[in-house]
Order: sequence, then C-alpha cells, then structure tokens
Amino acid sequence: MVVNERVEMEKIVSLCKRRGFVFPSAEIYGGFANAWDYGPLGVEMRRRIRDAWWRAMVTERDDVAGLEGAIVTNPRVWEASGHLKHFTDPLVDCRTCNFRFRADDLPEWDDEARALRQPTTCRNCNATNSFTEARQFNMMLKTFIGPVEDAAAVAYLRPETAQGMFVNFENVLTTSRRKLPFGIAQTGKSFRNEITPGNFIFRTREFEQMEMEYFCRPEDGFRWFDYWRDERYQWYRRIGIKETSLRRYDHPREKLSHYSGGTTDIEFAFPWGWGELEGVAYRTNYDLSQHQQFSGRNLTYYDEETKEHIIPHVVEPAVGVDRIMLILLLDAYDEETDSKGETRTVLHLHPAIAPVQVAILPLSRNEKLVPKAREVWALLRRHFVTQYDDAQSIGRRYRRQDEIGTPFCVTVDFQTIEEDNAVTIRERDSMAQERVPLPELVDRLREKTDVF
Amino acid sequence: MVVNERVEMEKIVSLCKRRGFVFPSAEIYGGFANAWDYGPLGVEMRRRIRDAWWRAMVTERDDVAGLEGAIVTNPRVWEASGHLKHFTDPLVDCRTCNFRFRADDLPEWDDEARALRQPTTCRNCNATNSFTEARQFNMMLKTFIGPVEDAAAVAYLRPETAQGMFVNFENVLTTSRRKLPFGIAQTGKSFRNEITPGNFIFRTREFEQMEMEYFCRPEDGFRWFDYWRDERYQWYRRIGIKETSLRRYDHPREKLSHYSGGTTDIEFAFPWGWGELEGVAYRTNYDLSQHQQFSGRNLTYYDEETKEHIIPHVVEPAVGVDRIMLILLLDAYDEETDSKGETRTVLHLHPAIAPVQVAILPLSRNEKLVPKAREVWALLRRHFVTQYDDAQSIGRRYRRQDEIGTPFCVTVDFQTIEEDNAVTIRERDSMAQERVPLPELVDRLREKTDVF
Repeated sequence: MVVNERVEMEKIVSLCKRRGFVFPSAEIYGGFANAWDYGPLGVEMRRRIRDAWWRAMVTERDDVAGLEGAIVTNPRVWEASGHLKHFTDPLVDCRTCNFRFRADDLPEWDDEARALRQPTTCRNCNATNSFTEARQFNMMLKTFIGPVEDAAAVAYLRPETAQGMFVNFENVLTTSRRKLPFGIAQTGKSFRNEITPGNFIFRTREFEQMEMEYFCRPEDGFRWFDYWRDERYQWYRRIGIKETSLRRYDHPREKLSHYSGGTTDIEFAFPWGWGELEGVAYRTNYDLSQHQQFSGRNLTYYDEETKEHIIPHVVEPAVGVDRIMLILLLDAYDEETDSKGETRTVLHLHPAIAPVQVAILPLSRNEKLVPKAREVWALLRRHFVTQYDDAQSIGRRYRRQDEIGTPFCVTVDFQTIEEDNAVTIRERDSMAQERVPLPELVDRLREKTDVF
Repeated sequence: MVVNERVEMEKIVSLCKRRGFVFPSAEIYGGFANAWDYGPLGVEMRRRIRDAWWRAMVTERDDVAGLEGAIVTNPRVWEASGHLKHFTDPLVDCRTCNFRFRADDLPEWDDEARALRQPTTCRNCNATNSFTEARQFNMMLKTFIGPVEDAAAVAYLRPETAQGMFVNFENVLTTSRRKLPFGIAQTGKSFRNEITPGNFIFRTREFEQMEMEYFCRPEDGFRWFDYWRDERYQWYRRIGIKETSLRRYDHPREKLSHYSGGTTDIEFAFPWGWGELEGVAYRTNYDLSQHQQFSGRNLTYYDEETKEHIIPHVVEPAVGVDRIMLILLLDAYDEETDSKGETRTVLHLHPAIAPVQVAILPLSRNEKLVPKAREVWALLRRHFVTQYDDAQSIGRRYRRQDEIGTPFCVTVDFQTIEEDNAVTIRERDSMAQERVPLPELVDRLREKTDVF
C-alpha cells in the first residue's frame, strides 16, 4: 500500500518536472523549503483553473461581485478576525537534539489536554520523554513596513483572502448597489508558516486561494449552506473529476468553532487517503460582527422588506488553485496498454482545463508541410492555447501531447495541400480522427473546447 | 498648474471610490499606508489588462512561454541578483524632530557626492542643517520562514518577478525544447519597501508586475532591444492610449549600470508631468552570468549552428498592472458638454479593457420588459462581462454606464416583445443606436468587443 502510494505521487512529480508543469523553486540553488515555481504548462493550467472558477462563481452568475484585496494590509484586520490570537499550532522541541515538531502531528498528542501523553520518543534522535511543553506558534508570516524594524511597523502576509471580503463588505454593497443575498469572490496568494508542509503542492507556505463569501439573511443561512455544498461538488464533476474520487465529509458539531453553523469538506481520494480539497463553511455573522466591533463602523444591512438593520450571515466555499491542479493531475493520469502491448501515458484532462488546447503537427518535417502547418498555427493561436511540434515521428508527437493532456491534435498532411484544404483533428481519449475543412476549423475546435 | 493637476487626479480617485474600482485597503480601519483594495470594477479591469498582455506576449506569439515563480524563494537569488547589496535608497533623519526622509527626493541631494548639500531645512520642523548622514536602506520586505526568527530563516518578498525567469531559464529551455531567441513571461505580485509611495496607485509597496525576459544571441541584442521598444509602444496604442499621451525616453549612457546595453522608458503624460509607464531594458548577459557564478550551475546555451556554448543576452520589457490601470483611467476620462449644456462623464475605454463589456437595460421597470431583459442577460453573461440595471430612467442608466466605460448598452423595449424580437445596441462614444435581432446579438457583440 505504502509503495503504491509513493509510486503514484512520484510519477506525477516526475511528469510535472519533466514536462514543465512544476519545478522546485529556485532549483539551481537547491530549491527552497516547500516552495514551487510553475513552468509553462503549469501556468497555462492554473490560468484555466482560475478562469473556470471565476466564470462559474462570478461572470455567469447574477449575484456575485469580484474583489482583489492587498496581501499586506492593516494588522487590525487580524486582531479582529482572531488570527493574531488563535491562528496557532502547538510546537514542541526535543531537549536532546533540539529538533522541533508540530505536537498535534505526533501520535502521542492528546487533543483534549492540548499536551503530549507520556512516554514519547523523538523521531529524530530516539531520546525518550525529552520534549518541552507545547507552545503556541502563530502561523502568519510577519514583515515590516517602513524603514525601521519595530513593533509599530509590523505587518503580516494575509493567511487567507476571506477577510478582504469582510472588510470591504460595506464598500461593495454601496458601490455595486447589491441586495441580499449576494457574494464577493476573490482569487489570490495567501501565506501560512506551516511547520510541516508537504505532499508536493498539496500543502505549501505560499499558496493561491479562491474564496467566496456569500452574504444572506440569517434565516436563509442553512438553505444557502446546502446550496453551496451541492454547487461546489457539482463544479468538480463538471471540470471532469471522477465521482469515485470525491466524497463529502461533514465536520461533527462538537468539533466546530462556537460561532459555526456547520462545515463540510469536499474530499478527494489522494494517494495517501481521503484529504481535504475544498471547505464549505457556514460562518454565521461572526466575521462581520467582529469587524463591526473592532472598527466601530456600522456594518449592518438595511432590509427594506422588514425595515430592520441586520448583520448578514455568511457561507464560504474556499479552495486553493494549487490543490485543484494537483487533483486534476492525479485524477487524469493514466497508463494505457493497447492490444499490441504498447503503453501510452495520457492525462485525461477536461478540454477547458488542459494547458494546451490544440497541438498543430505537420505529418513530417517536409518543406511543403511545414509552412502550411505554421500558417494553420498562426490562425489557431489567435483563439486557443496552442503548441506546434514537428520533431520526430507523428506517433511520438501524439504521445508527447497525450502525456500533457492536449485534447486535440490538428495534423497537416499532403492531402491538405494537394487535395482538400482540410486537416485531421485527432481526439486524445478515443484517438478517433476527423477530417475538417480549414475554413471550419476554428468553429469546430471552439465547439469542442468551450463545453461547460 | 498645481491646482489643475490635483483636480484631475482627485476626480479619478473619487470616481474609483464611488463606483467600486479602488478602495483604500481595509478602509474601515482607516486604510493602511499606501495599500489599496480593488473593488468589483477594478478587478474586472485588471483581469482584462492581464489577459490583453498575456495574449499579446504569450498566447499569440510563437516564441514566448509563461512562468509563475514563488513570491518567497531562496534568498541566494537576491544575493546573486545584487538586490541584497544594491537595492537600496539613501535615508536621512532630522535630529530635531526624528522625521525620516528619502534623501534623493530632497532638492539638496547631490547625486554625485551621494550626500546632501548644505544648508538643508527640514520640511517637517524647519530646523536647519539638522540631518544625519545618508544611510543606505534596503527596499526588500523581509520575513521569516519556519518557527524561529533568526538569521538562518530570513527570507524576502520578491522585489521583482524577473529573477524567477532567470533562475528557471534552464528548466524552461529544456522542458519546452526552445531555441534562441525565445522569451519567458510572468505576471504576479512584487513588493518594495518604498519610503515615499504615492500618487494613488502609481507607486505602491505591493504591486503587480508583468515582465518578460527575451533571450537571444549576443550579436542580436540591439536588434531585439529596438524590436521590443517598438512593440511595447504599439501595444499601448492598440489598447487605446492616445498618441499625445505617450513618449519614449532613452536613458543617457552615462546613467546606465555598467552591464546595461541601454534602457528606454515608455512615458505617460501624468497630471504631474511625464512619468515612467514601462521600462524596456537591454540587460546583456548580466543576470544569467551572476546566477551561473553563484549557483555553480552551467547556464549556457549550446548553439547548434556555431557549435558554441554561449550565455544568452536578454531584453526585458517590464510594467505594472496597477500603473496601466491608472493611465487607462486618466487617458479615458472625459467630461463632455452637449449642445443643451448638459455634461456627461465618460470613460472612453477600449472595449477589450472596459470592466463591463455589455450592460442590459430594460426601457423601464415594467412587468413585461424585466423578464425579457433578464432572459437577454442570462444569454449574454455566458459570453461577456455584463451588468443588469433597471433602476431609474433610461437616461440616467446610460450615464451610469458611460461613467464606468461600458462600451455597449443593450436596451430591451416594447418593440422587442411585441414586434421584432430585436434589441437596441447603444454605443458609448457616438451614442449611436443600432437595432439587432436577438439571434444575432452574441455574434454582433463579439465582433465589437474582440477587436485587437
């Protein structure tokens, strides 16, 4: 079981490195902690993930507006949100080897007592009962604004984008003349000083969130909680994630924060077991109430129907671009063996998510075929993300495109030039080929890629 | 002159606040330094700016690949790039009032001597000759990775995205099988601890860059420098910036770094005078050479034609999303007075850049018109960024859309329902109206908005 798990993640990590999806950050300097740089294919895939989310959550809806808050903002925000006080992990040091551990990751951790049970053995040096008491360590990354490093100038890199929506609730409400229910959505980088990041891009200190705060009347809270749990689950199905790879996990009531109306995780079947993909949280009116109290500003909503001032309730679906990218790769990866015993590696990525939408391939590197294929390329790259390839045999080039998940290859052959001014569209999954006249090519490919 | 300048910027700042383009960050807490949060219209405009740049610089070209590097990466990168040592501003303190100034912003600054000329008067307390000597202050924002704040864990928020492209040169070259010349492009946040940020979103500590490093043979460097200076200038013209608002400024040779082959700024006519919009820099082989030396890795390119190993030269066009947004607003803003003496405020934004592409307006809030208009809205928002508005008179709603730069309003009237199943497209600048059958509406609007 353990061996299989490793093989699968290793295959994805290796493919990502080899084909330019993900590199260790600043690899020429030996990388850096668990930071990653996204290469040409990774960037295109991330662009597509963000666009698909934004389209579903903002553009195509009539009730959600966008926002982009600053990463470094007024530290009072983190006082009000509770992050300064409560966004902590318990840490212990081994007195023998000075190694540091996140205490609640150790099997001896007692979550009720918030302490380690005796006896404990250090995983680094095997010393027994050598740990210090658990201390709380804040997970926000600290920085200093202005020329002097003093307490007055301390600021934090946001640990979540959500608070940007809460502090701008009033501004968005007024300037876009919204009525309840409505949402505010944001994508952007957040930072958490994780003690134990890991599993490739699953958990990293720097990550990109996609969060939406949906504000509604208090009495409608549970209805919208149900709605968004379902909506978000269906979205994963729409971008091609298999039903068997997804499940929902409802957090038991006794584990929830005092203000929470409920939290449901959408989980994915990772190689190491079920793990959180997206959280949908019913946060009641906690955040707006906190900010109203700390800022002294009136953050109520005037309900014209009931003539009452209320603090809206909030349902929040929150996920990371990096994590979606990882599950898409894991879910789409396949090694197929045909009747002749030949294996092809293929990423069965949804056409709206694949990093390259269309590859243009002349049948061979021939002096007549190449100029024609480049002409087709120039036409197509005005409309799609494309790649051109004329190196080696056509079979090998199909395999290269299969491995990066390109849904459609357009092949230019002698028939194109000498007979029919048409090209072949080869579909990745079925490997079926279809002859399409050049004047119809853009529309035909648009039908095939714009399929949500 | 000074009065006029202020009025113009104030009008833009006020419009941005009132209509939801830009808010002071965490305004309910009194804002924060010079940080800004982008509201619903600001976000859509920024999305369009990034997309237009990416399309022109990556997708539609055959020679540029994308990248997304980490904001917090290995600090050795900033040693090699020279940022740790040289990315500094000279600061002086007033000994009387303890106020701190960026010395090279003071009129008494002598750039040759790197010191203030006597006598100097403090702008804060009017003390004379009270300044300390100028000290160099590093502009990178510092943070700490891992649980302990010690020197070993110090890291920096990147002051530019460019170095991410240099340290990944080899990885991109190999995985995307490129040959010279080729470019690597990136958009993303950077941070500089500016002592004197200001002029709204012109200069901020947190900003979003769009940079491209174009690698070429050493002997082709000046040719590509010319090419990119021209290409980038033309791009601004294509997204609608007036010819009279733009000029080029070539940095004099004696002001350039020792390694530089030349730098040209594309400047914009800001209300306070000509100022830098975009820099196009010919950086020779400086950055790759530095990283080769500091990393000990071979960063040469093997030229198959000449059979030589070379370190490529680099031309870099670099600009900020925030600054482009500011110049678009400044350049597009107009107050027009018609023959009846009525004034309309209008943003003449290019249809590909405007935050709302199409507004859907029923002629009035009528029980027959509203459902039909909402039906048209549901159709259009699958293809465009839209806004629906049925509050107040149609004239006032046109004005509201003019003020945020919406290029097209689609009006649904009784004729639509009772006679022709057609709608009116009203064009923002000419105010001309055109009747279009509903089945043709999407295609007609697509022609009008997709116009690069």
